[in-house]
Amino acid sequence: MARIVQKYGGTSVGDVERIKKVAERVKASHEDGNELVIVVSARAGVTNELLARARAVCSEPSERELDQLLSIGEQETIALVAMALQGIGVQAVSYTGAQAGIVTDTSFTKAKIQSIDASPIVKDLKSKKVVIVAGFQGVNVDGQVTTLGRGGSDLTAIALAAAVKADKCEIYTDVDGVYTADPRVVKNARKLEEISYDEMLELASSGSKVMQSRSVEFAKKYGVVFEVRSSFNYNPGTIVKEEVAYMEKVVVRGVAVDKDQAKVTVSNIPDKPGSAGKVFRSLAEANIIVDMIVQNLGRQGVANLTFTVPQGDSAKAVRALEPVLKALGGGEVAVYGQVAKLSVVGVGMKTHSGVAATLFEALAAAGVNIDLISTSEIKITVAIAVDKADEASRVAHGAFKLDTL
Amino acid sequence: MARIVQKYGGTSVGDVERIKKVAERVKASHEDGNELVIVVSARAGVTNELLARARAVCSEPSERELDQLLSIGEQETIALVAMALQGIGVQAVSYTGAQAGIVTDTSFTKAKIQSIDASPIVKDLKSKKVVIVAGFQGVNVDGQVTTLGRGGSDLTAIALAAAVKADKCEIYTDVDGVYTADPRVVKNARKLEEISYDEMLELASSGSKVMQSRSVEFAKKYGVVFEVRSSFNYNPGTIVKEEVAYMEKVVVRGVAVDKDQAKVTVSNIPDKPGSAGKVFRSLAEANIIVDMIVQNLGRQGVANLTFTVPQGDSAKAVRALEPVLKALGGGEVAVYGQVAKLSVVGVGMKTHSGVAATLFEALAAAGVNIDLISTSEIKITVAIAVDKADEASRVAHGAFKLDTL
Repeated sequence: MARIVQKYGGTSVGDVERIKKVAERVKASHEDGNELVIVVSARAGVTNELLARARAVCSEPSERELDQLLSIGEQETIALVAMALQGIGVQAVSYTGAQAGIVTDTSFTKAKIQSIDASPIVKDLKSKKVVIVAGFQGVNVDGQVTTLGRGGSDLTAIALAAAVKADKCEIYTDVDGVYTADPRVVKNARKLEEISYDEMLELASSGSKVMQSRSVEFAKKYGVVFEVRSSFNYNPGTIVKEEVAYMEKVVVRGVAVDKDQAKVTVSNIPDKPGSAGKVFRSLAEANIIVDMIVQNLGRQGVANLTFTVPQGDSAKAVRALEPVLKALGGGEVAVYGQVAKLSVVGVGMKTHSGVAATLFEALAAAGVNIDLISTSEIKITVAIAVDKADEASRVAHGAFKLDTL
Repeated sequence: MARIVQKYGGTSVGDVERIKKVAERVKASHEDGNELVIVVSARAGVTNELLARARAVCSEPSERELDQLLSIGEQETIALVAMALQGIGVQAVSYTGAQAGIVTDTSFTKAKIQSIDASPIVKDLKSKKVVIVAGFQGVNVDGQVTTLGRGGSDLTAIALAAAVKADKCEIYTDVDGVYTADPRVVKNARKLEEISYDEMLELASSGSKVMQSRSVEFAKKYGVVFEVRSSFNYNPGTIVKEEVAYMEKVVVRGVAVDKDQAKVTVSNIPDKPGSAGKVFRSLAEANIIVDMIVQNLGRQGVANLTFTVPQGDSAKAVRALEPVLKALGGGEVAVYGQVAKLSVVGVGMKTHSGVAATLFEALAAAGVNIDLISTSEIKITVAIAVDKADEASRVAHGAFKLDTL
């Protein structure tokens, strides 16, 4: 018997038939004697429908009203999942974010969880009820509905797992777990049994779409061990935790690729203290995520900065930079189309040298030209041509023997 | 400048175009300097869609979960109406039932309002915001969502009008107001400028579909004056209040017809004390509304009971009665198809004699046969054949000169 938090995403509860399948799955676990908290997202597609209606009545709706509107998506699912469980003889009760005592700050559409009063949930668990909680949403101290932004339902599950002191947290999704590389690209990619928080974080920020960084960060901070697994089969998934077996012996744990990047070059800006700061401050204020920053000096007195941004943000980046360059007294911005970021990640890198050399040699041997390089303690990232990205994945995967480790 | 509560039903907010029209209407009243609380229902059709989904996952969902589910219908509308107002430059803020402090008992699907803490709404009104409140819903003391049952949004509007001490309450619907008879049937039917609570109550229970009795009862209890009017034009509607001009001089205020009734006869039941009580207790427990009860004695020692029930409940009535007759030791139940109830209503009847005679003579002259008769202080009701009901409406309307008064 264990206390388990399970989270099902929008695809897993996409229609009434899938909701009934989730209910069957929950029933089986409940009959094993487990105490269960089930976190669910809105049905896939519902959020977009609601947003379309919002835009039809108002071009720029307030974020408070957007949250009031969007939160009904999960409220529908919790009620339907609770009913589906009741329909097969399982006692179940649904909680909105507010009812679950999930108190957030007042940053509508991207609120941060401040506290959870889980005592009513724990009381229901003790009386053998399955508790269904709306993911993605909370309430501020004034009782206004807030939403947690992207990846919010995962965050709800992990935060609740900490609050109810769960033995386990299971994140059900449409993939089997975390792989050494994208299995659609690298045929012999392996599912990882375990991965550390830090490795998972680096993979998340490197293009692995399994989970958002903030949920992993939250889990790391509160020591919540969680498993990423599929709701469409019963295969074991990948367990994410602090300490992983043979952690330092495995040099590279996985390869991640993000093909949706653009390279931006800011050249010939006056080389004086504060120039780079002003450039990146303006991008941060425009909410653009910048990666792989490289600076070099050009002709005397001027500097060049190169970095990557998400492809969709490149035009916005140019608009944000133009006034800055004017204020700095010179410089040009150029965008170099689409590039791919390839990252190899592993905690073991910290204590092993030669990882970078192995990667660069392998890519060179395969004729993949490296455009930019950046490194962290447990990650090496290179920018390469998009049309070389799949081949580069396979080469890197092979070079670090990820199929056999 | 006045403080006004306006209520818009599901048809008035049926799609985004209609929501924008409501917003224009609200804006105009707001620009006149009024403080506005807007109560809205779910978009027409949404409740049925949600119920269909509920039934698809569970044949008998719990009422708690039904309320959790159904309440999202109004939550969608309040957010969209608030956004539509913001889109045309009006400051607006939406409140769910819970946020509006509408506390009810725990009778899910038919909750009763216990208290309203309107102070946050009043604060928003004073800062010139239009306040949009979800009709039909509240919350119990444990924070569980409840719904108020049929006519719930009207009730929300009238209860809020009392709570915020509104100068006026306007119930917008798809009819122009309360008429002396159904204008589709009686060509010269007149819209009433005013009507008393008691007359409105008798009309509501007699087949006039304008409003449910409970909202009128609530308004009468708290002295809330309200106006029933159309959201599709700017015509004045009908004002409902305690004292109406020339109240006692107008003998009959209106004619109402309910064609959806069945006549039930329970014959040859043992004529002993308590028999009738048991018969009607069993119908009450089956939630069947009984009207026009007539008892007469048959052959020695047995009694016959005749009454009307809503047509759709007649089979249920038979099922409810069969075990009772068995327990009483005899009797038969028979249902006589569809009948119509025609009622004439007016506070003035109390002090005028001859109203019944005028009605019966007029119907007789038109060849309408009267099957059953029942009367209250301010109402006379007759059961007649359905195919005579329209003609009977016109005859009664003419007999009491309702077109000219």
